[in-house]
Formats: sequence, structure tokens, C-alpha cells
Amino acid sequence: MSNVRATIITIGDELLIGQTIDTNSAWIAQHLNLQGIDVVRRVAVGDTRDGIWNALTEELTRNELILITGGLGPTADDITKPLLCEFFGGKLVVDEKVLAHVKEMFTKRNRPFLERNLKQAEVPDICTVLSNRLGTAPGMWFEQDNSIIVSLPGVPFEMECIMEDEVLPRLKERFQSDALEHRNIVTAGEGESFIAEQILDLETALPPYIKLAYLPSPGIVKLRLTGRGNDEAQLIKELEHHQQLLAARLKKCVVALEDIPLEQILGNLLREKALTLGLAESCTGGYIGHKITQISGSSDYFNGSIVCYHEQVKKDILGVKQETLDEFSVVSEQVAVQMAEGARRVLKTAVGFGITGLLSASGDYSVRVGTICVALTDKDRTISKTFHVHSDRLRNKEMAVGTSLLLILRFIKSMI
Amino acid sequence: MSNVRATIITIGDELLIGQTIDTNSAWIAQHLNLQGIDVVRRVAVGDTRDGIWNALTEELTRNELILITGGLGPTADDITKPLLCEFFGGKLVVDEKVLAHVKEMFTKRNRPFLERNLKQAEVPDICTVLSNRLGTAPGMWFEQDNSIIVSLPGVPFEMECIMEDEVLPRLKERFQSDALEHRNIVTAGEGESFIAEQILDLETALPPYIKLAYLPSPGIVKLRLTGRGNDEAQLIKELEHHQQLLAARLKKCVVALEDIPLEQILGNLLREKALTLGLAESCTGGYIGHKITQISGSSDYFNGSIVCYHEQVKKDILGVKQETLDEFSVVSEQVAVQMAEGARRVLKTAVGFGITGLLSASGDYSVRVGTICVALTDKDRTISKTFHVHSDRLRNKEMAVGTSLLLILRFIKSMI
Repeated sequence: MSNVRATIITIGDELLIGQTIDTNSAWIAQHLNLQGIDVVRRVAVGDTRDGIWNALTEELTRNELILITGGLGPTADDITKPLLCEFFGGKLVVDEKVLAHVKEMFTKRNRPFLERNLKQAEVPDICTVLSNRLGTAPGMWFEQDNSIIVSLPGVPFEMECIMEDEVLPRLKERFQSDALEHRNIVTAGEGESFIAEQILDLETALPPYIKLAYLPSPGIVKLRLTGRGNDEAQLIKELEHHQQLLAARLKKCVVALEDIPLEQILGNLLREKALTLGLAESCTGGYIGHKITQISGSSDYFNGSIVCYHEQVKKDILGVKQETLDEFSVVSEQVAVQMAEGARRVLKTAVGFGITGLLSASGDYSVRVGTICVALTDKDRTISKTFHVHSDRLRNKEMAVGTSLLLILRFIKSMI
Repeated sequence: MSNVRATIITIGDELLIGQTIDTNSAWIAQHLNLQGIDVVRRVAVGDTRDGIWNALTEELTRNELILITGGLGPTADDITKPLLCEFFGGKLVVDEKVLAHVKEMFTKRNRPFLERNLKQAEVPDICTVLSNRLGTAPGMWFEQDNSIIVSLPGVPFEMECIMEDEVLPRLKERFQSDALEHRNIVTAGEGESFIAEQILDLETALPPYIKLAYLPSPGIVKLRLTGRGNDEAQLIKELEHHQQLLAARLKKCVVALEDIPLEQILGNLLREKALTLGLAESCTGGYIGHKITQISGSSDYFNGSIVCYHEQVKKDILGVKQETLDEFSVVSEQVAVQMAEGARRVLKTAVGFGITGLLSASGDYSVRVGTICVALTDKDRTISKTFHVHSDRLRNKEMAVGTSLLLILRFIKSMI
């Protein structure tokens, strides 16, 4: 069975002047992809009648599923709702359920419900209303000539909520006759081509209804097995068998068997081993702490970070020695080691990590721009490393943080 | 004169499966917009011949400028270059200048130059080659029937570099007969509609060749004046006159007269006043420190941050009192004040800031999810505030950080 093909249409002038980065499309594409629906085109148009009308007309000739985001707010430039109503030949009517919900949202936020807010409860009478728990603008589901057109608000968390509550379950029911299952393997520290070579025979031996995809990102290669079949239990059994075979072959670089971000893999590992982590961050300015605390419950294993941007803070709080700074310079493995040890001591953790580096040309440092020194320490051992990053300041910071999280993970797994 | 209209086409399977968020389009749109070119459509297609060919054919019937990013790398799935060559009726030839540059890049990175890398130096013989200082794939500039088609690599910093070096100057020369100038006013703490009301008469009095745009984001409203005219000096004089009038009217909420991010406005202010800043971050986990250190040279005014995720760290390093924690709970203005004072003391700064809050449901806190308490202190005064955020964990953190940066800015400007 070939996959269903979809277009995502995003509406909004703010996308076309570059004021907003479109994160909705990536979210939608990822989630449709996991349900076996291929997004083959994405189109962004402004808040203009012609732009929206033409995009809709054209994409309907191409694909059987159209997802639209944006253009549903209460302000005057949002023209999508009446346009969709006209396009599909309906008329706008107040939906009592939506009205009650909108009024409740206004009450909760202590805002007066005005006459013009009534419009927010209007929907075309020829659509299925998709309720929006987190906002006032409902989603709308239209059907025409075997095509499905879904319109969603542009606010990311509202869009995600309606997708999860209403759209994905309906799409699954409609399109997914076969079972569709995924299993993942996350590897770290090896390149895509190296991994492909290691597992060539296993990949070749996969049955035709199980596909393997490589999803590389800096320092990480994610492998995803996707299987289709009519016997779900049997399919899962087979997928997990192949997942195990691949994981056993790639053993030394496997860091997780589920598709979760690096900071969560690290968090799970720390919790599992009942270890706590403390950081001393210079050049990363708190970004590693920020990443780790993106995970709910990270207070179980993360005590804190000493962001020691000024040299005095390295000395005062972490106990870095003036002689070490003088002899080796602030960007050195020797200083990173004293920072890691200081972090472990003052934050009272099992593991201490220190990072110092030069992200962009500034001041009169004696090291090359892009030089990063890190150190890791626990009760048994201390290691340090130097690596280099080669881009601009912001991307260098991203790379330094990604590499740091990987190194902490590998240190705790005794891979380094 | 009406604006030139452009389409951005982005190519890459990674965009359609949601693996990559498209930041290139926003960058390009912003920069074209500043040159008076309107992006009216954006289309994303996968690495397929049909997808690319059709998108190009269709968009050429619509707009006179097409910018393409992606699909130019050395791997097999990148089919854009031969396709463009065929589309415009040329043939691929090795460009000696590009070849020398590619070889130099390989040497610099200590990688062997292989036979298949020769392809990277091939370009269609009917395009103008746009040199890529930071990468191996050159940009290409095609012209056909009064349309301009520019193809650029998808790696963001390479794309940006070619745009700045080669594309934007050529577009300016080609399309911009009149002078086009912008002046900005950044306001904080007031909503778009309030501001619009305050300046209604000034906006109405603008000459027809000067337009005012509102660019709102959480907590911030940016006003941009854009003027066109044939006398550049006169135009700038007028723009600055209107900028001054608007700024004078909005005085109490104006935070900058140039278009720079909040963390840079704050940095400039701290440097100008020769003040230093120290943070104590609990719920934000280091994110405020990260934001502040995104600005090169921030070590001039930013000493560091104590990320005190664990209660023990608040007590040990910042001197938060057990009685205060017991009496008011960890999420309280009283604790925030002690954190701010502690940060100022141990980081030896002029200004101290503390933040503690509950971003998502976890543990057995006695406060409502989304409650954030902050405090600010300097030699003269200490203030504290409580605010609430209403979204999911990650967006709550973003909001808390944005609000914090604004509060620090307003504290230093004595606006609060």
C-alpha cells in the first residue's frame, strides 16, 4: 500500500517577512510521518485572499490530505475562516459548544467578553468542529471529493493539542488499515557511513515490510525501523527482534533504544544509576544547565551549575588557582579540571563537569578561536579533553553544548 | 513603484519529515524585506526531480525572483545542480576557480580530495557563479525571460554568507532605483493596541513615502519606519525626525532605537552605565545566562549565574535561609530576594537578579503551576515581583526568561 500524501499550508504575513520561524510544519510532518503519511509539499502564503485561495485550489489537485495552520485569530487580518467557508460552500454559524468554551476561557483569564469576540465562536456549517482545549479558535475538518482539509490555529501549543486530541486519531482511523510500528536505536560518537557499514548484512536481511531510516544530527545518528503488517503483535515482535540485533552489533555506540533527546537519555541514565550532576560552565553561559532542565523531573539528578563567566567567579566559588590560570591560560584542560572538581565539591554531586573555551574572537586570549576544553570527574577518576568548533559564535555554542552532553553521557556509561 | 515579488523554494527530504526546522526562509525573508523585496510564497519540496521541476516551473509563472536553498551537497540524493542545468538548457562544466577553492577547503580540513569531489566544482555553463567563502558548494545565479533564479546551499551559515557577499548587493543594484531606508523603535511593557492609540496622530501625519509597521512579540513591540525616495540624505533626515517624534511620545516604554535583540539592548545599557550583573537562576536552569552570553563581549558586564536547581545550593552558595524556605516556600518573593542578594554578593556585581518558579507540575509544591517569583537588587534598592505563565514547560521557560530580561532592563532604566 502506498502512503497517503499530504501538503501543509501555513498562512501568515509574519512567516513571509521572516518575523516568525515556522516550527509548526516540522512538528506536523514528524507526527504524520510516524503515522505513515508523507508530507510531500509545504507552502507558506500571506494573509491574502488570493494567496490562500490559489494555494488551496492547487494543492487539492495534488494531494488527498491538506493541513492548514494559521489565519484563525480574532484580529482583522485573519481571513481564513470566512474564506474556507466560501471555498467549501457553507455559511458561518455560531457553534454553541464553542461559544460556551470561548466564554469560559475569557472568564478564566479575567477578560470581558465583547461583541466582536462572538466571531470566534462562528464556524462553517459544513465542517466538523475540532475542539481546542487550550485556546479560543477551534480546528475545522472539511471533506470534499475524497480529499480531507484540516484547518488549525497557528499558535504552536494549540495546534499541537488539536492534532493530538482530534486530528491524529481520526487520520489513523481513516487511513491506517495495517498496523504501523516504529522502533528506534540512538547511537553516539560514530558517523552515518561507519554505522551503515557495520550493519550492512543486517540491513540487507530485513524483510520487505520493515524499513530502516538513518536520521543523523551532529554527534548522533538515530536509526528508525518502521514496519507495516496486519498482525500487530507479530509485527512488534519482529521489529524488536531486529532492533535487538542491530543494537547488539552497534553495542559500543548505542545510547538509547527510544526516540528521546540527548538530555533525556542522560537524565534517565543518571536516575537509573542514582547519580547527581553538577556543572561549571564558562563559555556555554548556562546553556548546558538550560538543556538538562528542559526535562521535567531533572531536579532528581541535577543540582545546579556555576556559570563562571568572569575569572573571579572561577577562583572565588570553584577554587580555580591563579597559578593554573597564569601557567596554562583560562582555556586549558587544567582549568577545566579544577572547574569540574570545584563544581562537584560545591554542588555536592557524584559527577562534576567543567567547560571553558573561546567561542568567537574577543579579548586577547592566547588560544585559537573555537578551542573548547572540558573535564569530567567522579569519585574514581578525572578525564579532560580538548575539541574545536569551526562556525560562528552561536553555532559554536550549540556544538559545544551537544558535544558536552554526549561526553557526560559517555563518561557515565564508561565509554570514555 | 511596487515591490519586487519573490518566492523561496527550499529543497530537502529532511524538511518534509520534520527532521529540520527551516530557519533559512525566515533569514532570507527578513533580508529581502529590508531591501524592499516582498516574499509572497514559500514552497518546500523533497529531493525529487518532479517536485523540484514542478515547483520551479510554477513559481516562475508567478514571481520575478526565485530563491532556492538546499540540494547542493556532495551526496547522491542531491539532484538540484544537474536539474537546474537541464532546466535552463546548459551543460555542467568544471569551474577552475571553484575547483581551486574546493581543493583548498579540503587541504585546510586535512581531508583527501577524491575523484567524486570533483563534481562539487562543476557548475552549469549558463549561470553566474556565486562564490562560497565558507563551504564547497557555490551559489548559482540564472536569468531567464526577465526572471532571476538564485540557487544556494542549505547549510545556514554558507547560505547567509553567499547572500551577504553576492546576492543582496546584486539585487540592490538591479531592483533598487530609489533609496530605501529603515529606522526602528523598540518598546517594552505595552501592548500593540495601546501603542497604536498613543501615536495615532503621528502615524496619520506620516508622508505617503514613509510607512510604519508594528512587529509585536511577547512583551515587546517593535516599530519600523520604512521610507523610499530619490534623495537619500533627505530621506534619512525625515525618517530620523519621525523616529524622534514617535520616541518622544512613547518615551516611558522605549528601550532602543535600533533593531537588536533584548539581550543586546540590556548589554549595551549595562556597558553604558558601567554596571555588572549577576544571576541566581532556579527554574530557568541557566537559560538567562545563556541568553546574555549570546552577545559577544558580554564578559564586560556579565559575571555569572548561580544555577541553584537543588535547594541545598540555594542555601550553601547563595545564603538563602532555611526559615524563609519553610515559612514562604521555595517559590516566593522572599526567597527570590535572598537569591538576588546572594548572587550580587558572591558574584561581586552591581546588580543581582534572582528567579524561582514552578514551570510544570512536579513534586509537591504548594504554589500553582506557572507561578514565577523574581527579585532585583542593587546598592540602593530591592524589588520583587510575581507573575504567571500559562503554557507547557518549555514555553513557560521561554516566557519566564523573556519577562526576566525585560524586568532587568526596566530596573536598570529605573522604569520599575
